[in-house]
Order: sequence, then structure tokens, then C-alpha cells
Amino acid sequence: MKSIVRDMSLAPEGHLKIDWVKEHMPVLNRIREDFETTQPFKGLKVAICLHLEAKTAYLAKVVKAGGADVYIAGSNPLSTQDDVCAALVEDGITVFAKHRPDPEEFKQHLIMALEVEPDLIIDDGGDFTTLLHSERPDLIKNIRGGCEETTTGVIRDKALENSGDLPFPMIAVNDGYCKHLFDNRYGTGQSVWDSINRTTNLVVAGKTVVVVGYGWCGRGVAMRAKGLGAKVIVTEVDSIKAIEAIWMALK
Amino acid sequence: MKSIVRDMSLAPEGHLKIDWVKEHMPVLNRIREDFETTQPFKGLKVAICLHLEAKTAYLAKVVKAGGADVYIAGSNPLSTQDDVCAALVEDGITVFAKHRPDPEEFKQHLIMALEVEPDLIIDDGGDFTTLLHSERPDLIKNIRGGCEETTTGVIRDKALENSGDLPFPMIAVNDGYCKHLFDNRYGTGQSVWDSINRTTNLVVAGKTVVVVGYGWCGRGVAMRAKGLGAKVIVTEVDSIKAIEAIWMALK
Amino acid sequence: MKSIVRDMSLAPEGHLKIDWVKEHMPVLNRIREDFETTQPFKGLKVAICLHLEAKTAYLAKVVKAGGADVYIAGSNPLSTQDDVCAALVEDGITVFAKHRPDPEEFKQHLIMALEVEPDLIIDDGGDFTTLLHSERPDLIKNIRGGCEETTTGVIRDKALENSGDLPFPMIAVNDGYCKHLFDNRYGTGQSVWDSINRTTNLVVAGKTVVVVGYGWCGRGVAMRAKGLGAKVIVTEVDSIKAIEAIWMALK
Amino acid sequence: MKSIVRDMSLAPEGHLKIDWVKEHMPVLNRIREDFETTQPFKGLKVAICLHLEAKTAYLAKVVKAGGADVYIAGSNPLSTQDDVCAALVEDGITVFAKHRPDPEEFKQHLIMALEVEPDLIIDDGGDFTTLLHSERPDLIKNIRGGCEETTTGVIRDKALENSGDLPFPMIAVNDGYCKHLFDNRYGTGQSVWDSINRTTNLVVAGKTVVVVGYGWCGRGVAMRAKGLGAKVIVTEVDSIKAIEAIWMALK
Repeated sequence: MKSIVRDMSLAPEGHLKIDWVKEHMPVLNRIREDFETTQPFKGLKVAICLHLEAKTAYLAKVVKAGGADVYIAGSNPLSTQDDVCAALVEDGITVFAKHRPDPEEFKQHLIMALEVEPDLIIDDGGDFTTLLHSERPDLIKNIRGGCEETTTGVIRDKALENSGDLPFPMIAVNDGYCKHLFDNRYGTGQSVWDSINRTTNLVVAGKTVVVVGYGWCGRGVAMRAKGLGAKVIVTEVDSIKAIEAIWMALK
Repeated sequence: MKSIVRDMSLAPEGHLKIDWVKEHMPVLNRIREDFETTQPFKGLKVAICLHLEAKTAYLAKVVKAGGADVYIAGSNPLSTQDDVCAALVEDGITVFAKHRPDPEEFKQHLIMALEVEPDLIIDDGGDFTTLLHSERPDLIKNIRGGCEETTTGVIRDKALENSGDLPFPMIAVNDGYCKHLFDNRYGTGQSVWDSINRTTNLVVAGKTVVVVGYGWCGRGVAMRAKGLGAKVIVTEVDSIKAIEAIWMALK
Repeated sequence: MKSIVRDMSLAPEGHLKIDWVKEHMPVLNRIREDFETTQPFKGLKVAICLHLEAKTAYLAKVVKAGGADVYIAGSNPLSTQDDVCAALVEDGITVFAKHRPDPEEFKQHLIMALEVEPDLIIDDGGDFTTLLHSERPDLIKNIRGGCEETTTGVIRDKALENSGDLPFPMIAVNDGYCKHLFDNRYGTGQSVWDSINRTTNLVVAGKTVVVVGYGWCGRGVAMRAKGLGAKVIVTEVDSIKAIEAIWMALK
Repeated sequence: MKSIVRDMSLAPEGHLKIDWVKEHMPVLNRIREDFETTQPFKGLKVAICLHLEAKTAYLAKVVKAGGADVYIAGSNPLSTQDDVCAALVEDGITVFAKHRPDPEEFKQHLIMALEVEPDLIIDDGGDFTTLLHSERPDLIKNIRGGCEETTTGVIRDKALENSGDLPFPMIAVNDGYCKHLFDNRYGTGQSVWDSINRTTNLVVAGKTVVVVGYGWCGRGVAMRAKGLGAKVIVTEVDSIKAIEAIWMALK
């Protein structure tokens, strides 16, 4: 099946981005080495729906290194990076994704990734499972299972499970300790501030910052707000977390 | 004298930028209110050489609000923002600046700002004073004095003063307590990290960061490195500052 | 039954200590107000085994305010404060405790508190439950249940429960969120350093501190070590906690 | 001249204390090694007035190791430790000091240390210089100079100097960078909290702490208050320091 991307001439820039993140992902590199030897996905088709940027692109390459045929679509019309898509095509992965597609086109890309009748899926936000359940149950038959990256998707999948409609097992990556403790806290904690700083062009120090919710993401955002010199106010409906926020603010 | 800018059609974007920073500069706003009443620069020509972006653009507008005719050139070929320049022209300030001019053009812009025979100058890096001393002493005669923003310029001006060649008094803004304690520490402290984060797209937490020198900028950069979760190593030749760095690292 | 204390003339000093802590225990004060009205322990005998100092003494007084006849023994021969014991006697509580009793006397005090045939027990370290199970099962019959304060005791009680030998239900206070998150972290975190500082008379800043284990107590001790300016090294066998310690050290 | 101390039988405890601090004073140990070789005070009499506890006792021993005959009095009736005094006598230093002497006795001890007609003095709080100037100018004649430890004494000595009444040069130890940056900030910063914690027996975390003045001691006290989990409010009349306090509170 033929890839659908914006512009193949962007591939060199995409390779640079993927090579850069690869240097900073030691755990994934270690897994890649194992996969190259053990070929756990040999002969399997894996459909992926993720934010299509350098880090997830490298994940797709590692899955392919494990022996899979990989088909990938973007999980958000705005986050897809056209240069990264072009690079993945050059690396032998089938891509259905463009930056800012129209809504119909976006959905069509997801469907195309499922029409390969994958053995395994990697889902983000429950896009694949929802689509399979509500519109294309005919594409379920080969799927042995998959994994779901984020809170929204886990909630959707659990709803399907509770009503007996989840047709295959899904691993809730989101529930892993390391996801909460490290990705949410340190990853989101910093990246939220990277975004705010790029958007506002302001000094954070001396500002008052209100963080809504003191879950793991909120903890990370609050921690970095303090690290950048802000006065931090946390709002929280859970009483234990609220007390934690008070004490943490004083640390 | 006619302004020289890249593209006047960029002015709307420039106004947006200047309006944004204006909202976040309460001290300068207060000074502007005073200047509008007291008109301290009435009838004077002020030549300015600064990084030409929104915050300095607003400073130029405040000087104009104080009664001055303002002439401004960029202090660095790469930092000049063409949209901000266009907006300043619409605001009645004479601008000689483009982003990425060729070197000859860049120098010509500085000279044009001085050829108005200003009464006062605002200099950054000693560009004006060096040019006046070495090439255009004929343009000195009306200048009553000025101020210099940064370390490099203060060093150059002091060298001129020591050899008896500084032809008018210069205020070393750079030596002010608030410049050291706040601009260097909190301003540079954050903006260095904004730049690194935009360039590298990496999580800082867990990285080892080496800060060379523990002056006020170094303190700010080290403080924010810690605030972002880095392990910080400081190198410093001054023994007292070096001990300070050790202790601070433990705070 | 008559109290056994070291010296009743110490009571005034004991009252001062109890009054001081009472002022700083707003939650317990609120509970006392409720108890005075609702009298939940009316007609019941409560036997308590706790470190006998001002804060637990006030707890005993609050239990009495709830209508109970209170009998108290010390949970550690070294932590019992004779002045606090004397004050409790004056407040109408039956006390069996001395600072530094001989071992036989210490055990006898525990037994005396149980020989009142209590309805409820408050235990610390499983002293009461172990004694009841191994030596004095005859004193169990009136006991409806109780609560256990600390990790050691919970472990002992669970061992009894697993072998079917726990003769009445025990509430594991130690498993409460607020115990972990606040008492362990903030209470133990500071009090360990109070003890070290009193014993060593040294400046903490600049010292290297090794914290063995990164549970809630370890987190508190590490957090305060950093707050006092130490360089902190954590040892930990649990891999997730170990990563947490690395990241936290960088906060 | 014969020492005057409370009780020579306390010497063993005093030696333990001095030996303990000696292990933790590497800089002074290094100086002692130099002094033992170079004997800079050979043949000189040195009179010392300091808080007479283990650390200053060891300083006195180091001065003696440099060749001096050392005579020492306490600078505060309450801080003198009788066991340390006894140990110093055993170490060959002449001591005139008791814990809680009556006021007349306290002053007499200072005079006795000066009546040896010292060559050099080490003063704390200006006690020696004030006494020499106001009551015993006859004892000045041999004094070549000395050093003063603390702010109060430096102020007194400067007043004498301004009126032309300082009869010999005094080194203001208090004005040294390392005194401000390290002793005031880290030493006083912690020891104030050691004292508060011993006196109040309370958890600091969650309390609101008001620090009056943001000099170097105030910075240390505020820093440790934050390190112990307090909410910190600083009052300060100097506007630059006040802004520093606001920003630091946010670090």
C-alpha cells in the first residue's frame, strides 16, 4: 500500500530530527538492539496512531526493527510533521499523514492504517478502538491486541470493556509507574513551560501561576513553575492531594 | 531623514509585539506617564543603538513620549526584527535597520543614526562611541552624553576614558544593582534556557549542565538549570565565587 | 487501680508541656470538641501503650474527654517522660510508666494496663497484641478491637491475622495516607535532623548525607537534608523508588 | 598567673568537646600545621575574649601552637562552658572564666586577661577595647593590635577610631567576605533554627516565619526556613534588598 505524505523532498530534515532524538533515547536504543536479534514481530503487521513527530517516528522504526510491517497515521491533525513523515517513508514504513489535513482526510488516514488488517495496534486517545467499534468492526478480525498511550484512550477503552465491547486486550501504557512518575511529571512539567515561554515571551520569575489539578502532570507543571521562580497556586478537589500541594509548595 | 526598513507592510505584527511587552513593563509605563507630563527631552535628538525587538522598541517610544526626536539603529544584524522596525516608523520614530543586512549596510545604518547630530545617545556594546572616536569625530560636537547598556560597552568606554578619549560622559547602566541582581540573574537566567530548550528540544531534568563562571549571569543560569532539574557543575577562577557556587549548589 | 509513676511533684512541668502541644494540634482539638458532646467512649475502658510524652498524653486526654476510662503504659523505657506521666495522673488518667524502668518492671506495666480488661486498645509496635497472644490470652475477652500506630506493629498484627491468631480487629493507623504523606515525610523528616543536630552540633550545609531507603520517611529525611544544604545520596533496592530518588535529588 | 575556672574535674568532658570540633575544622587544622612550623607568635602574649566553647577553645589552642602565651576570658557570662575552660587549663592556656559569674566577677576576668599586658588581642563585641579606653588605658602600652569578631565590636571600634581614640590597629574580621557569605548565612542560618527547634519542639513545615531584615544573617535564616518547609515573609527597609527578598522567596 502506498504512503500518503505531504512532500517527500522534506525527508532529509526529517532524518536529522529522528537521528537527534535517537541519540537521547538510550532505553529505546537498548530495546532496538534486542529486537534486531529476537525479531518479536516477525511477519506481523502493526498499525500505529500517534503524534507523528521525531520521537514516535523513532519508536515506529524500532517496531520495524523488531520484524514488523509498520503502518502509521497521525493522532492529531496539528501535530503531524511532514518532514518526519517523509523520512519514515524512506525508512520503509507506510505513512498516512499530513500536517493540517481536512477532517475527512484525517479520518480516512486512520481507516487506511486499519485496512491493512493489522495484527497489533498502538493507539493514542482511543482513535483506533473507537473507529473499529463504531464504524469498521469488519477490520477487527486479525487484531490480537495492542496498547493505548494516554488517559483519554484508557477511559474510552475501559468504557468499551465495561459494556463488553472491547474486542481484544489493550495494555494501558498510561497506567505504568514510569509514565506517571517520569513522563507526566518531568516531561509534561517542562514541555508545558517550553510552550508557555515560546508563546508569551515573558519572564516567569515573579509571576503568579495557577495550576489546576495536582495529579502527576500538575505536580510537574507546579514544580517547574517554582523552578522558574513563579509563585504557585494549586487548585484541587481531592483533599489529600490538596494538602500535598500545600506542603509541596513549601518545600 | 527617511527611515530604512525591510518592509512597511509588517507593521501590524510589530505593533502587536510592542503592545504585548508594554503590558508587562509596569516600571517603564510609570516612567512614560511622568515623561508625558515633564517632557525632559523636549527639543532634543536622541540616537539609539539597541537590539531592535519589542522591548527596546517600547523604550524608544517612551523616550519619544518624553519629547525627543528618536533615531534608532540595530546593535546586531541578527537580532533586528523587521516587523518591529516597521511599527516604530509608523509610531513616528526614524529607523535605520534591517534583519541580516550585509556588513557594510549594517555599519552605514549606525552612521546614519549619528549623522542626525544627536544630543544624547543610548549605546549597546560601545558601537556608537567606538565609531565616533575612530571614524567620525566630526559627529561628536552636539552630544552631551549618553548611557551604555552592557559589559562589553562599559569596558570599551572605560578604555576610552582611561586614555582621555571619551569625549562626553556615559552612564554605565550595566553597573546598576538592579541590572546585576535582576536582569542578569532572572532575565538572562531564564532566556538562556529558553534558547537552549528551543534549540535542543530535550528534557533538562537529569542532564548534567556545566556553567562557566559564577557571576550574576552564571548564577541565574545555574539557578534555572537546577529549577529545571539538572545536575549543575560550575567552573570559576575566583575563589570566593567558587565557594559560593559550591554552597549554592547545595541550597 | 492506682497509678505507678516516678514522682508526682513533677506534674506542673508536665502540664506545661501538654498545654504547649495542645495549642499546636488543631485537628485533635476539633475532635475533642466533638467527643465532649458525643461521648463515643462512654462507659468503656481504653488501654493505651504509646511513647509517653506530651503529644500522646494529650491524645489520652482527648480519649478521656470522649467518655473513656483511660489506662496508659509507655511503649519504650527510654521515651517515657516522668513529668508528663505525673500530669496525666492529675488529669484523672491511670498511668503505669516510668523513665528507664528495669525490663521486668517495664513489662509489668504493660500487663497492668491490660489487667483492667479494656474494651479498646491503642497499641504501638504490637506490644499489647503480642503480650495478649503469647502470655495473657485470658485478658482478651472484653476487647472489641483497637488500633496500631506503626509499621512494626502492623507487621506483627498481620502475622497474627495470617495464622488466624488475631483475636479482634485492629485498625492499621500506619496505613493511612496522612500518616505516610505527612507524619512520615514532614514529621520524621524534621525530627531526625533535630536529633542529629543536637547530637553532633555540626553545620549540615556542605556535608554529604547518605539516606538508606527512599520510602516516605527516607523522602522526608532526604528533603530536609537538602533543605539544610547537604549533598544527598540515597540508597534504595526498589528500582522505581531509586529512579524517583535520582530525579528528586535534582529538583 | 593562675587560671580561674569553675571545676577542674570537668576537664575530660571539655577535651571530648574540643576534640570533636577539631575533627570538623579542616581549615584551622591546616593553619595549625603551619603555625607549628613557623611559630608566628613566638614570645608574644595574646589575650582573647570570646564565647568560651569548644570551637573558640580550639582557636585558642591553635594560637598557642603558634608560639603564643594565651590568656582567655569569656565574652558572655551565659555562653562560657565550664568543662571547656577546665580542658584549656590542662592544655596550658590561662583561663579566667566561669559560667554565670556575677557581673563584677565577669568584668574582673576581662581585666585579669588584660593585666598580663598582651602584645595582641582577639576581641568580641569590643569588650577589651572599650575597657582599655574607658577604664584601663594603662594596660594599652604593649598592644600592637588585634582583631574584632563581630558587628557590635566593629561599630564600637570605628567610633573610637573616628574620635581618634583607637590606640592600636584592629582587623575587622567581621568585614571579611567569608564571614558574611558563609558564617552569617550558613552558620547563623542553621544555628538559629537549631535554637528555635530545641525551644519550641514544633514542626517548622507549614508554619509562617517572619524574618526581620534581609542582610546575610537574614538570608541564611530565611533560606533554612524555606528548607524546613516554612512559608517565609521578609521585612526590610532597604529597597534593593527588599526586591531581592521577593525574588529569592520565589527561587
